[in-house]
Amino acid sequence: MPFRAALAAALPPHRIVDDPDVIAAYSNDQAAWAPAGKAALLVRPADAEEVRRVVELCFVHRVPVVARGAGTGLSGGANAVDECVVLSLEGMNRVLEIDTAEQLAVVQPGVVNDDLRAAVAEHGLWYPPDPASSPWSTLGGNAATNAGGVCCLKYGVTRDYVLGLQVVTGEGKLVRLGRRTRKGVAGYDLTALMIGSEGTLGVITELTVRLLPLPRKPHTIVGAFGSLVAAGEAVAEVARRGLTPDALELVDRYCLQAVDEWKNMGLADLGDVLLLARSSTEEAAIQDAFDAAGAVFSTYSTDEEEAEALFAARRLAYPALERLGPVLTEDVCVPRALVPEMLARIERHGQAHGVHVANIAHAGDGNLHPLIIAEDPAKAQIVFDLIIDDCLDLGGTVTGEHGVGLLKMRGMHTELGQDVLAMHRAVKAALDPAGILNPGKVI
Amino acid sequence: MPFRAALAAALPPHRIVDDPDVIAAYSNDQAAWAPAGKAALLVRPADAEEVRRVVELCFVHRVPVVARGAGTGLSGGANAVDECVVLSLEGMNRVLEIDTAEQLAVVQPGVVNDDLRAAVAEHGLWYPPDPASSPWSTLGGNAATNAGGVCCLKYGVTRDYVLGLQVVTGEGKLVRLGRRTRKGVAGYDLTALMIGSEGTLGVITELTVRLLPLPRKPHTIVGAFGSLVAAGEAVAEVARRGLTPDALELVDRYCLQAVDEWKNMGLADLGDVLLLARSSTEEAAIQDAFDAAGAVFSTYSTDEEEAEALFAARRLAYPALERLGPVLTEDVCVPRALVPEMLARIERHGQAHGVHVANIAHAGDGNLHPLIIAEDPAKAQIVFDLIIDDCLDLGGTVTGEHGVGLLKMRGMHTELGQDVLAMHRAVKAALDPAGILNPGKVI
Repeated sequence: MPFRAALAAALPPHRIVDDPDVIAAYSNDQAAWAPAGKAALLVRPADAEEVRRVVELCFVHRVPVVARGAGTGLSGGANAVDECVVLSLEGMNRVLEIDTAEQLAVVQPGVVNDDLRAAVAEHGLWYPPDPASSPWSTLGGNAATNAGGVCCLKYGVTRDYVLGLQVVTGEGKLVRLGRRTRKGVAGYDLTALMIGSEGTLGVITELTVRLLPLPRKPHTIVGAFGSLVAAGEAVAEVARRGLTPDALELVDRYCLQAVDEWKNMGLADLGDVLLLARSSTEEAAIQDAFDAAGAVFSTYSTDEEEAEALFAARRLAYPALERLGPVLTEDVCVPRALVPEMLARIERHGQAHGVHVANIAHAGDGNLHPLIIAEDPAKAQIVFDLIIDDCLDLGGTVTGEHGVGLLKMRGMHTELGQDVLAMHRAVKAALDPAGILNPGKVI
Repeated sequence: MPFRAALAAALPPHRIVDDPDVIAAYSNDQAAWAPAGKAALLVRPADAEEVRRVVELCFVHRVPVVARGAGTGLSGGANAVDECVVLSLEGMNRVLEIDTAEQLAVVQPGVVNDDLRAAVAEHGLWYPPDPASSPWSTLGGNAATNAGGVCCLKYGVTRDYVLGLQVVTGEGKLVRLGRRTRKGVAGYDLTALMIGSEGTLGVITELTVRLLPLPRKPHTIVGAFGSLVAAGEAVAEVARRGLTPDALELVDRYCLQAVDEWKNMGLADLGDVLLLARSSTEEAAIQDAFDAAGAVFSTYSTDEEEAEALFAARRLAYPALERLGPVLTEDVCVPRALVPEMLARIERHGQAHGVHVANIAHAGDGNLHPLIIAEDPAKAQIVFDLIIDDCLDLGGTVTGEHGVGLLKMRGMHTELGQDVLAMHRAVKAALDPAGILNPGKVI
């Protein structure tokens, strides 16, 4: 039986979408700069068994399969490849279980990050990883990309919260990896191997995630600085003093102005570059570090509304800039003490090539997101590549949290080197012997 | 050139040990019950390049290589296999770097856990994973087994602290995995894959570990209970109330008496079963949960000396019991709410088969260590296997922190199932194509 007919026989008919317009809408993520292929079909499975059947048929017929959640990725990892099946998991969106004693939740991959937070908050629990896309992005996508966020500085990234996965393998087998218990070392950590593998080693059909008790609201510390590099110095000073804020975010003038133009918040009046920190215990010490590094203004408050507004502005920075035109989003991570040096280099590259570069950053992690305003795509690409080279030069990594996808393949190859890439290829071949899972991504 | 001659040509002569008595002393870990093969040679490399040369020659000549640290493992993971090279990494014991701003340390694999703690404490920093073997066990061994400990309840296990590794692959290549930055998603998480793989996927030659600021001393909460199951109920009650102690340990009468006999501490006068908890914020609430579950005595104190003595007793329990004869050490992990049920089953199995079972436990994690006093090895093995079956029946895992090694292979096979085992074998073949790395362990 040909593939299309076999698929029709294996699934209820309304699961399969042939409409080219709908397929096209599901064929790329938010990385405007990454190329997308022309998918053959869109499939919207309703449960893990349907996912298994699709992948098994793709394995038998050697058809590529690209899994996706909400498509909020920024590296092209979920972009279609030619003649593939796009497998949209957004319909599998049920929270299956919240276990308050064990502090875990079991969810389908299409559950939206903020929906899980809201569900567990009713039980006094908290799921920490909070990518800026949390109102839209799904847990499956968060796990596939090992998403980070604002809270990661203190609380860690997605990988730190996934205890176990149900996965469909490259040969169409439905398996359980990991565990429900707090600890466990039975066998290789294939759960961690799947996290961040961007759908190239398996398709996630269920997640068991660890939860924490809802923390008390921390204080918010604000510092305004006269330049990017001054703000970077404050980040390095916080690190040098051994301070550990829960979050430490940077937003520059471009971003503040873009948010102001959209939401009329008057943020740019505060200063050229803002640092926003959260802490329950070190607010005075963090303010002191900001001041020592040359803050033109600093304060801290427990006014929740004011604090929420500032962090909301941080979240709005990316969509606000996107309103103004195509944005090429960088995502590099450097040692924290080198944040000022990296910010200085980014600024120089922008100036040298006549390209506007806005900056938001999970600065406390050393995770910078230069946003390259792409008036001239060729120039933007040059600056993008120079930033990658510089982050490697400073001992950093080419992607802190957005993933490799298509945009960071060159950088990752340089970072890892041939021997480690060969290990990646061997692992990929071991778990996806037919090479059908999101081919051409990551490696 | 034959293997022995090639090895002699590749290393300074005193690195290679042929003395059968010395080789025998390096041919097993602390799992008295696990069989050990007869090694051909012991090699004590001085640096990563020497490790690389040894493994490369083993690859070319198809000679098995078993890497080991201090040999404190409890599952036979470091036991020699016939005709192997035992590769002792204990001589590679230098702390290479402590970076206070980035809060990380770079160490050789033979650095002893407590030595790293002492070195970083001078900088106000802390390496949390604290297996009971911390005065002797090495960071390389801790990583190879993904060691846990008392602090893991709040602070996580070894895997949560290893940012990057230098590893010699199964083909004798020296590679770097992971990163120095706080975050990073460039490629598959091969670092996590190596952690807990017990030397079957690579030989660790350097570790970059994340550090935390030294925390303030917490309070110690003590509860004494009339039975194992009552203490287990208190653990479940702590979980049900959403309390999050830093540590929550259980020590039963057998262990208390064994420590008393050795160190004359008078612990058994406190009660039949002790729970020891640590917390900086919830000491009254934890004591209340202990009382509600029927504690016959409870208190909390900040008397550091008294608290240290109690936790020292917990650490001494295993060596104290070992003094009295061979001990078959279990290591299972169950959901926390099922700790009383699991403890009741363990007690019943011991009684039914006329075998003494002592219990220590990282109870707050659900990680139990029944210690089977092996008067009759055959009976002890029956109880060992029954406990494994029960932990799986309760949704647990057959090894919480000691690793699979030799003792847990049967249990792990049951836990994982054929399809997941096939994934393990594929990954093993991908990264160790000649099958020379610690063959016959884990899978």
